Amino acid sequence: SKFFSIKCSPNVHYKITPQARDRNADSYPLTPNAVLIVTMDAVSKTANDSKVPAVHPQNIFTLRISLDVDADRDGIVEKNNPNKGSWKWGPNGHGAILLVNCDSETTNKKTLDSEVEEIRKVSDLQDMSKMILRTNGPAELPEGLSVLYRMVPLSFLPENKLLKLFLKDYIMVVGTDMLTQKVPYLGGKTELEFFVEGLRFPDKDFDGLITINLSLLEPCGKGFPETPVFTDKVVFHISPWIMTPNTLKPVEVYVCSTDDNHSFLKSIRNLVEKCGYKLKICYEYMNRGDRWMQDELEFGYIDSPHHQFPVVLDSPRDGDLQDFPYESILGPDFGYVTRHALNEEVSSLDSFGNLEVSPPVTVNGKSYPLGRIIIGVAFPTATSGRNMTQVVQDFLWAQKVQAPIALYSDWLVVGHVDEFMTFVPAPDRKKFRLLLASPDAGYKVFKSLQNNGHGNAEMFPGKHSLIFSNSFILSDKKLQAGNRYVQNCIDWNRDVLKKELGLDDEDIIDLPILFQVLEEKKGARAVAYYPDMVNMIVLGDQLGIPKPFGPKVNGRCALETEVRSLLEPLGLKCTFIDDFAPYHKLLGEVHCGSNVLREASPFKWWNLEL
Amino acid sequence: SKFFSIKCSPNVHYKITPQARDRNADSYPLTPNAVLIVTMDAVSKTANDSKVPAVHPQNIFTLRISLDVDADRDGIVEKNNPNKGSWKWGPNGHGAILLVNCDSETTNKKTLDSEVEEIRKVSDLQDMSKMILRTNGPAELPEGLSVLYRMVPLSFLPENKLLKLFLKDYIMVVGTDMLTQKVPYLGGKTELEFFVEGLRFPDKDFDGLITINLSLLEPCGKGFPETPVFTDKVVFHISPWIMTPNTLKPVEVYVCSTDDNHSFLKSIRNLVEKCGYKLKICYEYMNRGDRWMQDELEFGYIDSPHHQFPVVLDSPRDGDLQDFPYESILGPDFGYVTRHALNEEVSSLDSFGNLEVSPPVTVNGKSYPLGRIIIGVAFPTATSGRNMTQVVQDFLWAQKVQAPIALYSDWLVVGHVDEFMTFVPAPDRKKFRLLLASPDAGYKVFKSLQNNGHGNAEMFPGKHSLIFSNSFILSDKKLQAGNRYVQNCIDWNRDVLKKELGLDDEDIIDLPILFQVLEEKKGARAVAYYPDMVNMIVLGDQLGIPKPFGPKVNGRCALETEVRSLLEPLGLKCTFIDDFAPYHKLLGEVHCGSNVLREASPFKWWNLEL
Repeated sequence: SKFFSIKCSPNVHYKITPQARDRNADSYPLTPNAVLIVTMDAVSKTANDSKVPAVHPQNIFTLRISLDVDADRDGIVEKNNPNKGSWKWGPNGHGAILLVNCDSETTNKKTLDSEVEEIRKVSDLQDMSKMILRTNGPAELPEGLSVLYRMVPLSFLPENKLLKLFLKDYIMVVGTDMLTQKVPYLGGKTELEFFVEGLRFPDKDFDGLITINLSLLEPCGKGFPETPVFTDKVVFHISPWIMTPNTLKPVEVYVCSTDDNHSFLKSIRNLVEKCGYKLKICYEYMNRGDRWMQDELEFGYIDSPHHQFPVVLDSPRDGDLQDFPYESILGPDFGYVTRHALNEEVSSLDSFGNLEVSPPVTVNGKSYPLGRIIIGVAFPTATSGRNMTQVVQDFLWAQKVQAPIALYSDWLVVGHVDEFMTFVPAPDRKKFRLLLASPDAGYKVFKSLQNNGHGNAEMFPGKHSLIFSNSFILSDKKLQAGNRYVQNCIDWNRDVLKKELGLDDEDIIDLPILFQVLEEKKGARAVAYYPDMVNMIVLGDQLGIPKPFGPKVNGRCALETEVRSLLEPLGLKCTFIDDFAPYHKLLGEVHCGSNVLREASPFKWWNLEL
Repeated sequence: SKFFSIKCSPNVHYKITPQARDRNADSYPLTPNAVLIVTMDAVSKTANDSKVPAVHPQNIFTLRISLDVDADRDGIVEKNNPNKGSWKWGPNGHGAILLVNCDSETTNKKTLDSEVEEIRKVSDLQDMSKMILRTNGPAELPEGLSVLYRMVPLSFLPENKLLKLFLKDYIMVVGTDMLTQKVPYLGGKTELEFFVEGLRFPDKDFDGLITINLSLLEPCGKGFPETPVFTDKVVFHISPWIMTPNTLKPVEVYVCSTDDNHSFLKSIRNLVEKCGYKLKICYEYMNRGDRWMQDELEFGYIDSPHHQFPVVLDSPRDGDLQDFPYESILGPDFGYVTRHALNEEVSSLDSFGNLEVSPPVTVNGKSYPLGRIIIGVAFPTATSGRNMTQVVQDFLWAQKVQAPIALYSDWLVVGHVDEFMTFVPAPDRKKFRLLLASPDAGYKVFKSLQNNGHGNAEMFPGKHSLIFSNSFILSDKKLQAGNRYVQNCIDWNRDVLKKELGLDDEDIIDLPILFQVLEEKKGARAVAYYPDMVNMIVLGDQLGIPKPFGPKVNGRCALETEVRSLLEPLGLKCTFIDDFAPYHKLLGEVHCGSNVLREASPFKWWNLEL
């Protein structure tokens, strides 16, 4: 033949490619490699309800099928979003979001919700993302066409323990051991609602993206496997774990009660009550004498367009406080995650006084609206030394949204970044100041006291049987040499922080703090000489600062006066808290002994441009 | 005091922050937290040659120190590039580039250059990146200031086997067991030249970025560690391994000689010589009867602004050809890399007939100027089935610059993507066509023959003792059912390729090829019924196509005629090569039995916007 013609049922349309050149109403010239494309503009009411006599099979029908998620991130599952199959960061981005269901709906007989196979309470559905399978087609599918879906991780994990899929009636349909499932075809226009539960946080071996594939399979006769007719897919990004900087509003302050910290606890309670925040005390039956509330855990949160809750990161430190995060913090809408060191020694640098986060910053035009994580490690050119354990570093880097900065903290005996730095809110400039411990600023105070005739003023009034006079401190060559060393170490970190956070000198305040260097087996390392005021608790504009017990001038501690003069002009209120016996003498201070749960940032992590 | 004044040597300058408000020529008001910043505008000739009496230490000097690399990617090491410490993709990007030194300067007693501790030949320096330590300062540093550098991987590998650093006199100064090194300070204006050697390709656990840190250390007196005064750093990105699509110019064709393929070899030789390319024959002492040259290896290359060379990826297939890539291909400026399966079974899908790459494409505005890698795996909703081994998939994904596409190839007995698809150059549209095997197109040819009175024309003339007439083929219901199944499988892949490569139907040509489905233990899988013409060798506009042995019409094979009519209008020249006995009957064809080394793409991978 040289020409052909086409007839079909009224709701069937066709197109010929390549376009027939000499088209006339009745027939088309046959050209090499001609393709006839048949389309229908309405869904079929019964199977094979339309006909195209020239096409094999002659009976045809239409079925609309779509796997739908909240790809536009407004909290509502829309219909067949063209971008549902991929992830793009940013305010113009797309891709659905999944939470790791790491809280526990029950408070007794606790388990992470993600570790149980069933849905225990209706409220648990809140922690999952909705997914809808929308079908519109004939009442029955012909010849056993079937619908199948399966999750496929984009980043090829050896195990697939990434998500579980529940039907609305709480039945798990795809899970850790059951990666694929046939879906019943109900006929007509139907919506099947699923709840998707995330099981794993992003990590070194998992970029946080999970794909769910849906396939329409056609039987191909005896002896043949079913063949795919149509595949749809949706992508979820697991919410990263996000830390909260000192500039975010506090919700609850955590502190330990021990047999020797009653007056400290009273000071903290007074401060917290004055501010109107909640106070959570961890009692001795749980803390077993471990008072370092800062070190055992770090608060963060996970966030999605439909739900958000705080998540505690449990440190591999595992002191006597080790059960506290799981036993006392995990609960409904309070999640829990931890990492265990693998074939690695856990060191003091694994305590979370060594894990902080900056307020939002912009560095050379690149913005970090959620701030940047700050950890302390060995010096970059050191071949030995202590580091934060690799699994925790990997976890922190993998969250991506608060790109970490590694500082040098191994020069300290305890080795935590909170021993020499913190952030406080400020009304001007970048809306915060970086506070740094500064031996130079410390000596400046002592020298000025001496110059003003207070050389004999007593250090540690009432705290030491030995008398350390102001002049005694100024004449201690060893103390001076140690503080020159410490100042060098802090100056190097200052340069790194200025560069990595985009700070000017005007964004930094040097607090007058002296250190002393102890000879340890593995070399000389530093501790605070008097209570380390930078190791403070920041509650909005209220600061709970370790009371330094410096020399008194006119009945007032000269160090407190100096710190007030540096911080009060910013609208900050300083409360000096006596932590000398129960914390300072054990090489920690107020910040080490407390923790603060804060509100989540108003900035949504998926709006980051990565 | 309320005011202060400053005097210093003539080449010393100073700045006071915050800016003194009531500045006059002689003195400045003392303000809280005032900082005096001292700078010098020339490098010191001797240590402590300048003075600022008010500053401690009173004697000061300047030293300029800079670790330099080719951060602007022009092949020349510039001076103190402000972006040398970070990596940015794209034509406006920055960051130095490092090659894995995976070739072998020696041809006898071969080892990868990266595996030997010394530099064996001057030519080996070509494979490394230059790095220069520039110092300008006094003749001697005071009190034992020292310079130290160390490599630090940004992505925290458990082992640091990422690079080696050689001095110009070929002495290794930093290597796999020696991660840090003090550098002699030579005084005055000096340049110390290093050669940096990459050791590892990007992979799942390594993002390809390596940092080298340089520190100036200051002694801090007895009993104290040295403290960092200044740190400089440079970043290198390891070149990914890059594949070459069929549209790039061939250099050399590789093929095996066996005891039964003399006439095939002769046809290949004729074709290659006609085109003017080189031919490399792998003889039996090396191939031990394994003729599948496509499957044991894949050619690619690595590229940097200063040097480029081809690199063969050795498949974990490890057939009898397994020694060929290392023994016969590795050599000076011809690199080698391999991956071994870990606790995984290697399957037929690990042969590199199942690893191809598309020509450059643009998909929804996103461009892939180096094309996209294509591999074959099990169907996305299948819970069992064969896959390409995880280590090879991880390697391919980690190269990043040719974002892979996974097709469904497990429906084939052999399971390679080259059994149903290839790319050929074209003068128009996207400068290429995708060729797909098409049973529908095959039946179209056979039906048209029957309609034109050639129903008794013989299939496989001269090749089979049984006679398969044209009508016999058309009446074989089982063959038809199998081909419907195959067409479904290919159609699904066609949809994926259209979407992932941004192709229209006009970019695709369907070649008339029938398959037959075999009942295997693990289900029904397909093989080509007659020589699979899509499994061709592409040498510029010359195609070496498996001779299909179809029914003859007027002395000419109807299948050849059809394929010529589809391809010759694109300016392509078809040579049909008889591979029936030595390849087709063993379930492979021309492409499976050959390999082509091609020129590198003119597009530079670091100019990609990722």
